[in-house]
Amino acid sequence: MSQLRSSMSRLRTLSSREVCSNVQLSSTIRRGARSFGSGTSGRAGGGLRSGVVLSASIIAGLGAALVYSQSNSVAHCDGAPALSVVDSYGRPWKPVDALEQDDPKNVMRIRMALWVKALQDHIVTSLEAIESSHPPGPLEVSPSTTGPKKFFRDAWIRPEGGEGSSCVLSGGRVFEKAGVNISIVHGKLPTPAQKAMKSEHADIPISEKPIPFWATGLSIVIHPRNPHVPTIHLNIRYFELERDDGSDEPLAWWFGGGTDLTPSYLDTDDVKYFHKTLKSACDAHNTKYWPKFKDWCDKYFYIPHRQESRGVGGIFFDDLNTSSPLNGSAKPTQDELFDFVKTMSGAFLPAYLPIVLKNKDKAWTDEERRWQLLRRGRYVEFNLGYDRGTKFGLATPGARIESILMSLPETARWEYQSDMGKPGTKEGELIDVLKKPREWA
Amino acid sequence: MSQLRSSMSRLRTLSSREVCSNVQLSSTIRRGARSFGSGTSGRAGGGLRSGVVLSASIIAGLGAALVYSQSNSVAHCDGAPALSVVDSYGRPWKPVDALEQDDPKNVMRIRMALWVKALQDHIVTSLEAIESSHPPGPLEVSPSTTGPKKFFRDAWIRPEGGEGSSCVLSGGRVFEKAGVNISIVHGKLPTPAQKAMKSEHADIPISEKPIPFWATGLSIVIHPRNPHVPTIHLNIRYFELERDDGSDEPLAWWFGGGTDLTPSYLDTDDVKYFHKTLKSACDAHNTKYWPKFKDWCDKYFYIPHRQESRGVGGIFFDDLNTSSPLNGSAKPTQDELFDFVKTMSGAFLPAYLPIVLKNKDKAWTDEERRWQLLRRGRYVEFNLGYDRGTKFGLATPGARIESILMSLPETARWEYQSDMGKPGTKEGELIDVLKKPREWA
Repeated sequence: MSQLRSSMSRLRTLSSREVCSNVQLSSTIRRGARSFGSGTSGRAGGGLRSGVVLSASIIAGLGAALVYSQSNSVAHCDGAPALSVVDSYGRPWKPVDALEQDDPKNVMRIRMALWVKALQDHIVTSLEAIESSHPPGPLEVSPSTTGPKKFFRDAWIRPEGGEGSSCVLSGGRVFEKAGVNISIVHGKLPTPAQKAMKSEHADIPISEKPIPFWATGLSIVIHPRNPHVPTIHLNIRYFELERDDGSDEPLAWWFGGGTDLTPSYLDTDDVKYFHKTLKSACDAHNTKYWPKFKDWCDKYFYIPHRQESRGVGGIFFDDLNTSSPLNGSAKPTQDELFDFVKTMSGAFLPAYLPIVLKNKDKAWTDEERRWQLLRRGRYVEFNLGYDRGTKFGLATPGARIESILMSLPETARWEYQSDMGKPGTKEGELIDVLKKPREWA
Repeated sequence: MSQLRSSMSRLRTLSSREVCSNVQLSSTIRRGARSFGSGTSGRAGGGLRSGVVLSASIIAGLGAALVYSQSNSVAHCDGAPALSVVDSYGRPWKPVDALEQDDPKNVMRIRMALWVKALQDHIVTSLEAIESSHPPGPLEVSPSTTGPKKFFRDAWIRPEGGEGSSCVLSGGRVFEKAGVNISIVHGKLPTPAQKAMKSEHADIPISEKPIPFWATGLSIVIHPRNPHVPTIHLNIRYFELERDDGSDEPLAWWFGGGTDLTPSYLDTDDVKYFHKTLKSACDAHNTKYWPKFKDWCDKYFYIPHRQESRGVGGIFFDDLNTSSPLNGSAKPTQDELFDFVKTMSGAFLPAYLPIVLKNKDKAWTDEERRWQLLRRGRYVEFNLGYDRGTKFGLATPGARIESILMSLPETARWEYQSDMGKPGTKEGELIDVLKKPREWA
């Protein structure tokens, strides 16, 4: 954690109110989640923004940065810089406007759509800020690379119903390939598709007629160029099956999601930090979530033929609704579950960007790059061979293939019986963890 | 075809007997197949080798080359150099010794095992001869490349029964990654695996007990470095289900196989030459084979989510036995089917190497290399997503993953909405063919 802190402190000016530990991070997320949440959850707490003072300062050599200091009191401070509220560039970690403007009077499919749009925009702009401030260097570049990159914002309409937007950055200096995609689609789910879904959503009644559905999701995959910066993935989704009688009340609905980290080289501080941030986000809503979702993630992102995990895990969940067995007798409202999804997806930037900022300027060797590309080969093996979302997408007629496969890296590599990854090497250290997932938080 | 011819004539000295067209190629293959075949097929014709004169000549700058001239008379000559008997380096296209030494008194599983071993060795040495004679140049090299490469010959034992040998060349100058693998395995096929096989082998009786099996195969995938040299794949396999009563007569048996070409850039001469060579090999045994196997290949090597073929096709067949519907009332003997498999797999080098030799010294641009890597991405999508052999292999506990995945290229690339491949470009010309498979022979 000390490296993460020094990386952050090198990059930003701190106010006296900003010294707090990860304990505050969780506490802030928890408070944030509750106060940011919809009013209908009946919880107390003012909006975070009301207590905020924005002040500008210039950090030499890094351009203008706004330092975001909060008036909320923080407890358990230990002198470390705050990672919880604002990034090194002065940008808030979370789309505060979107959190505040969420209107509980809207139906959930609208609220979720507004959330993924806002979060997509927020994440895209945050990544672009990092990309554009990164100096050109003697780095390997793509044939198509000419300078700092902006995301290509590709809005699309689904002829069968709905819309989406794929934001993809290609050939960047920091982010070799990054996709931040949203889709808000609706249509009719034929009986076979209902049955295909049944195994994981046992409560869904099968109908002989196609059932109207509404699906909203955000998917992120980021493959950085530097082998010392891990790849990351996040997905959140809200699914509704509608009634045919014109009523507003859906027949069934659920949330799903997850995020996992895939480093090429193991940095235990980074991995612990990532897991702890997610644990804090989960614990703020239900202390049963994290152990269950961490375990689910280890099971899901597993490459059977390699007998190893894709990466160092994170969280994964599906079929989350008011009657999820996980919640026992304390049935949460839909609002409360949505709050969790917002907290969890809002934790994406604070969980990942400090790791990017800490490692992005590290030098790397050809061999380290080679190892990174070999690991990306495994990423491709998982995504094309096992990932249910990818397989479902590719098998769906009319699906938008380019958006589904944006998850694949710009480059990947396969060697027969590679000599890399042997026990006792830096590469072997990662393999140990992929073979035996650990507890990190 | 003229380019192919000039490429060959540049590389070798021709005797007056060697001027013949592709018509002769087919005729030679036909005659060769019949005379090379086992005596039990009862066909006339002396061994090809008996009519052969070996003479040595030196081709300036290309080292020693043996020119193989044959005394068999050839018809329909049109002045083009012969590609049918020997390559530019004086090496016979086919493993003549193995063809001659095949003993029809042996059971088929032994004969097939000896054939794949001999052909593997022959192909590996032929590819190495090309690789070692190719001069180092200003080419892109792998991090691990230091000079002309030999195949890594990796023999292995299957603990559950059987053996194999994976020969893999990595980081070569001509062959960036090439795998020539054989496996000769046996064991017990559990009921679920029998059922899984049933859909494609309807004649197989399902048993509640595991059935002993014997499977022998040769698999080749070659990914050349130069974007103007196509990738190629070949597979042949012989499968037997055994009886439990100790009798030598198998319960069921069949041959399967195929070969297909995957260029990054379309050279219609090369594609026609490849298809015609395969057609000749097929026609020599059954004129119904080629139309059926060509069509089967187009259907098999298809990437549904891209709505395009993997490459320009070739042939594909499965479940070939004496009662194959394809043969109608003229039921071939097992010997005759084995002869076909030998002809077809023996046609691998004459079908492919002239294309390699013609194109391997062409210059290429970064953009052409980029396009090649994008095409390799599609190759990976097919192999991991759809190839039944790969999927079956990866799902089989105890399978040798490294040998199965040797088919993946050393490097591959994915771009979101790539600007390459547009209509009217060289790249788009290939896409046209992949979208609408053509007749080439």
